[in-house]
This record gives sequence, structure tokens and C-alpha cells, in this order.
Amino acid sequence: MGEKNRYWVLARRPVGNDYSSALELVEEELPELRDGDVLIRNAYFSLDAGTRMWMSAREDSYSPPTPLGTPVIGMVLGEVVASRHPDFRTGDLARAYGQWSDYSVSRPEETYVERVSWQLDDLRQHLAVFGPNGWTAYLGVLEYGNTKPGETFVVSAAAGVTGALAGQVAKQLGCRVIGITGSTAKGDWITKELGFDAAINYKDDKVAERLRELCPDGIDVYFDNVGGPILDASLENMALFGRIAVCGLLLNYDQEGPIPGPYKFDQVLMKRLSITGFFSPDFYHRGPDVNRHMRPWYEAGKLKMNFAVTQGVENTLDAYRRLFTGDKVGKSLVQVAEL
Amino acid sequence: MGEKNRYWVLARRPVGNDYSSALELVEEELPELRDGDVLIRNAYFSLDAGTRMWMSAREDSYSPPTPLGTPVIGMVLGEVVASRHPDFRTGDLARAYGQWSDYSVSRPEETYVERVSWQLDDLRQHLAVFGPNGWTAYLGVLEYGNTKPGETFVVSAAAGVTGALAGQVAKQLGCRVIGITGSTAKGDWITKELGFDAAINYKDDKVAERLRELCPDGIDVYFDNVGGPILDASLENMALFGRIAVCGLLLNYDQEGPIPGPYKFDQVLMKRLSITGFFSPDFYHRGPDVNRHMRPWYEAGKLKMNFAVTQGVENTLDAYRRLFTGDKVGKSLVQVAEL
Repeated sequence: MGEKNRYWVLARRPVGNDYSSALELVEEELPELRDGDVLIRNAYFSLDAGTRMWMSAREDSYSPPTPLGTPVIGMVLGEVVASRHPDFRTGDLARAYGQWSDYSVSRPEETYVERVSWQLDDLRQHLAVFGPNGWTAYLGVLEYGNTKPGETFVVSAAAGVTGALAGQVAKQLGCRVIGITGSTAKGDWITKELGFDAAINYKDDKVAERLRELCPDGIDVYFDNVGGPILDASLENMALFGRIAVCGLLLNYDQEGPIPGPYKFDQVLMKRLSITGFFSPDFYHRGPDVNRHMRPWYEAGKLKMNFAVTQGVENTLDAYRRLFTGDKVGKSLVQVAEL
Repeated sequence: MGEKNRYWVLARRPVGNDYSSALELVEEELPELRDGDVLIRNAYFSLDAGTRMWMSAREDSYSPPTPLGTPVIGMVLGEVVASRHPDFRTGDLARAYGQWSDYSVSRPEETYVERVSWQLDDLRQHLAVFGPNGWTAYLGVLEYGNTKPGETFVVSAAAGVTGALAGQVAKQLGCRVIGITGSTAKGDWITKELGFDAAINYKDDKVAERLRELCPDGIDVYFDNVGGPILDASLENMALFGRIAVCGLLLNYDQEGPIPGPYKFDQVLMKRLSITGFFSPDFYHRGPDVNRHMRPWYEAGKLKMNFAVTQGVENTLDAYRRLFTGDKVGKSLVQVAEL
């Protein structure tokens, strides 16, 4: 093709939140497509906390770690600019596992590539409300958490994309919804903009105490994105027969070596709790159906999601770092082209 | 009545496995019955690991600890010898929450008391196969563990009553069943007498390694009675979408202070596991129905349970200690009268 492509390669395993020593931006010509390849000009790629895990050498993750020297993988949204796969044509809008790059070469027979509609008021919502985060929120609340109308629902990393959507889904069920976040700004966003009933700032508040005050009858469903001490604070405050939907264990992703499990694990037995882990690729095939259910809520303004957009592939690493440390609210995307 | 009754009182909180410094045998005359009381002459009372938890001062248990100075509570089987409750008559056979004693005074409006049949080849099975242990095994396997025919099923404390019955129930479903026990004698019992496919001795074997060898495709269902390092060894070896039915956390019952949860807790997320705690009083009302399902297996000799019977209320404490340390197989009972 002769076209230049820049992409991030995992050169070394990152330490903590330092990505600039670990990832390198490589520029090279796009390869010739093979049969079965689809070439997507990335408009956006998504920055997700889970990617941090694959950067580590952990062998006990969902799937093997990203091999050193290979491109960092991420969900992309972009236009198909060349295709040697019969189901994809130039001009299609595609969401796919691609690379943190200008262009993604993806193989639909081997990895996730899906055509999505050009008919959406904000196409970026294909990477938020109507993408894996939205499906995770919806199914995490309704199926894995088995949340019932009127229950008390608590979510951690509540200003994260999945957390914020999960809280809004629970609100649509008529639940009392409490979000745990790491700043006042995030707490304000979820309560004032998204309609959560209350926010807890885990950096300033004693989480277990605040949960006890806010949930005097116990937590029916805890939607966990973080694990660690916040999971313990929730375990301590679960209602009998409560459910914990484990969507993420953010606090563990950059840890090496043995990590003690929740100190209040006994509560599983004492309160007859259920804990269920889930992972969005298991239900990507259900995305279109879930989207049909979420569409009316979205159109009524009940499923909101902002975007924190960074321009240019070269600015990826700082944006990724801020995913873990910053005060951004909304979905973090890197924009590399117009749609 | 003028009749003497001896019963064990919790005088102090026990330390470790030392009960003789903590419990005292009191002898006094039976009190006059009040309206609503049923007087049972205990034939047997049951020694259960869970009782240890109530002896501790733990406030985060299923229910508050046994108050100091009050009788130790246990499941009893005996004949009703006096009743001031309309549903119970002299000569009934009753299973009830009673006391570790010669006689139990129980109030059916306030606690569990149930008439059971005199028609059973071994009446002691009312405290084993056809009692709470059996129901826990059956529902733990089928409902909480959601075990399917042909799956790989692992149970800890497999020579304990519930564990041994759970393994036999899983065998009836056509599962491959592996039991974890603490001695060769126990391992021999479950494999040679009860039909388990394999036994692991956690004192001699490296549990995680042996599980890896015995379950090359992973564990579909782990029925946990013990928690601690054996739970971790199992978590490490679960199959994708595996289920852990938490029936007991024996290793924690005599602990005070914070106990780290499973170090491999992350596997809940990585392998999309479910963990569910359960507790038999939640389903006592389902006992008769469960017994109907288990009866044909029992009659075909497929649900076996031995008894380790200690004679005399005065010999209770040593028998209780051996529940945790000994090499007994089968249900531990104290016999205080004939039936």
C-alpha cells in the first residue's frame, strides 16, 4: 500500500504506571493484505483498564500476556479502507480488536471484527454505551448481579465507563444507586449528571462506614470493578443473599506476586452471598440484542456517557496513564482520524 | 418432673481445640414445661464443625455467638416424652435444635423441631443422609454448585459427613469425583467404600499439583468445606465458568482477627467463576422433598454413611475434639439413650 502506519509495541513489561519506558511507537509501511484480512483506518481506539493486565507477565489472566515486541491490542472504531474478507467492504464502519495505531489489520476469522451502523447521533457511542462497556454494564446488572427493581445497588469505579453505565442501568430498574469514586469531581458527575443517589469518595471517606450509613439494610448487589479494600468494605455491608458481580479487579492489575483475597471472604458463607466473575468477550455476540434494550433509555437521555478524547497516536501513553490517576470522567479514546 | 438433666454450658470461649477449659457439664432438675414447649429425651445429639463458630466471639457469623453461661445447642434426635405443643405428642420421634444434654426442651414456634418417621432401617440416618447434612450435600451439588452430569467434581473435607455425601450425590450424576481428605484411612474410605474416583491427602500431597494431574481439563465444581490453602489450590485449577459451592470454611472457625481471603481470588474474574455460600437452615423446609429424591439412591446402597458414636453425655468433649483432629470417618454422634 505504501501508506505509513504508526503503532505502539510492548517493548518491556511496564512497572506501575510508567508506560513510556515500556512501550515504543514504531512507524512502518502497511503490509500487503492477506486473504481474510480487513484493513481499518482507525478513527478512535479505546483505552481500557483491562489492557494493563496483558502488559504484565501474569500467566493466570484471562488469556496469555501480550508477547514482548508485539503491538498493543485495543478496541478500535474506524472505516474499512481495504478488505480481503467477503463480509467486509470498503466504506463499512467497523468495531474491532485492532491495534493502538493509525491503521488496524484485523482478521474476522480469528478475532473480533463487527460491522456497526453509521446511524447513531454520536458514533463514538459504538465504543461506549453501545459497545462492550455498555453490554458489560447491562448484563452485569441484570444477569450476573441478578439485580431486582428497588434493590440497593453499589458500584465501584463508578465514574469509569462501565461503572457509570451500570449505575444508570440500575437506576432504570428503580434501584437505589450508590457509586464509589476517587474524587469529588467524579462524585459530582455521577450524582448531578447521571442521577446516582449518592457518591462515596474512597480517598476521603471511610468506605465501610459510609456504606453502613447509606445502606442500613445492606447492599443487595455490589458491582465490583476494583477489588482490594473496597471489595472488603462492601463484603462487610452486604445484605443476606446479596450478589457481587465481579467485572474488574483494577487494584490488582499492576501487581506481581500473591495478592491476599478479601479479608471478609467469610461473609460469602455467613450471608450466603454469590460472587460471579464475568468478561465481555463472552457475550459480544449478544451485543445487538442488548443494544436494542438499551436504545430507548439512551434516547430518553437516561444512559449518558461523555468522552475524554486525546488527539494523535503519539499522545496515547500519557492518556493511558491518566486512565488510572486522572480526574477524567467519561470514556477515554484516542482519536487518530476523522469519521 | 423431678428428672435429672445434664447439659453442657459454654463457660468461656474456647482457645483452639481445647474444650475442657471452656465447657462445663451442669446437672439440674428438668424445669416445668411452659405452653409451647416440647420435651425430648435425646437419644443422639450431633457433633458438627459449625458449632465451633458459635463458641467463638465472632460477631460476623451467620448468627450471634452463643452467650457465655448458656447451653451449647446442637441437632438432636429423640423421643418426645412430654409436650405442651399441639403438634407434638408423647411417643413422637423428633429431630430438633436441642442441647448437648440428656433432655432437650425445644419450642417449635421459635426453633427447628420436626417430627420424623420411625420407619427407617437406621434411625440415626435422620441425623445424616436424611438430615441437614444430606440436604446440604444434595442441594449444594445440584443447586448451589449447579453440577451437570459428567463434570469434574472436587470436594474438600471429603470424609466429613456432608463432603462424603456430596461426593456420592455427584457420583449419582455421573461426575468424576475427587475428594480431599487429611489421611490415607479417610482417602481409602471414600474411594474403596463410597466410590470416589480419587482421593488427595492434603497432609502428604501437594494439593494444587495433584489437582492439576487429576483434573487436566480443570475442576467444574468445587464443593468447599474448608477454605484456606485448599480453596486456593482449587481456584488455581478451576475450569472456565466453574462453580464453587461454599458449604463451610472450617479452617477459619477457630481463628480470631482478620483472615486473608484466597490469594487466587483473581481467578473468579479470569475464569468467570461463580462462588456461592449456603447454609442449611435456609432450606430445612425443603428436607422432605430432598429426602424423596435421595431415598432411591440410599435404598440402592449408593448413599452410604457410617457413624462414629460416643456413649454418654459426659464423653462429649473428647469426641468433639476428635471431630477436628481425629481419623474417624462417618457422622459423629453422642448417644445418651436408646431409641
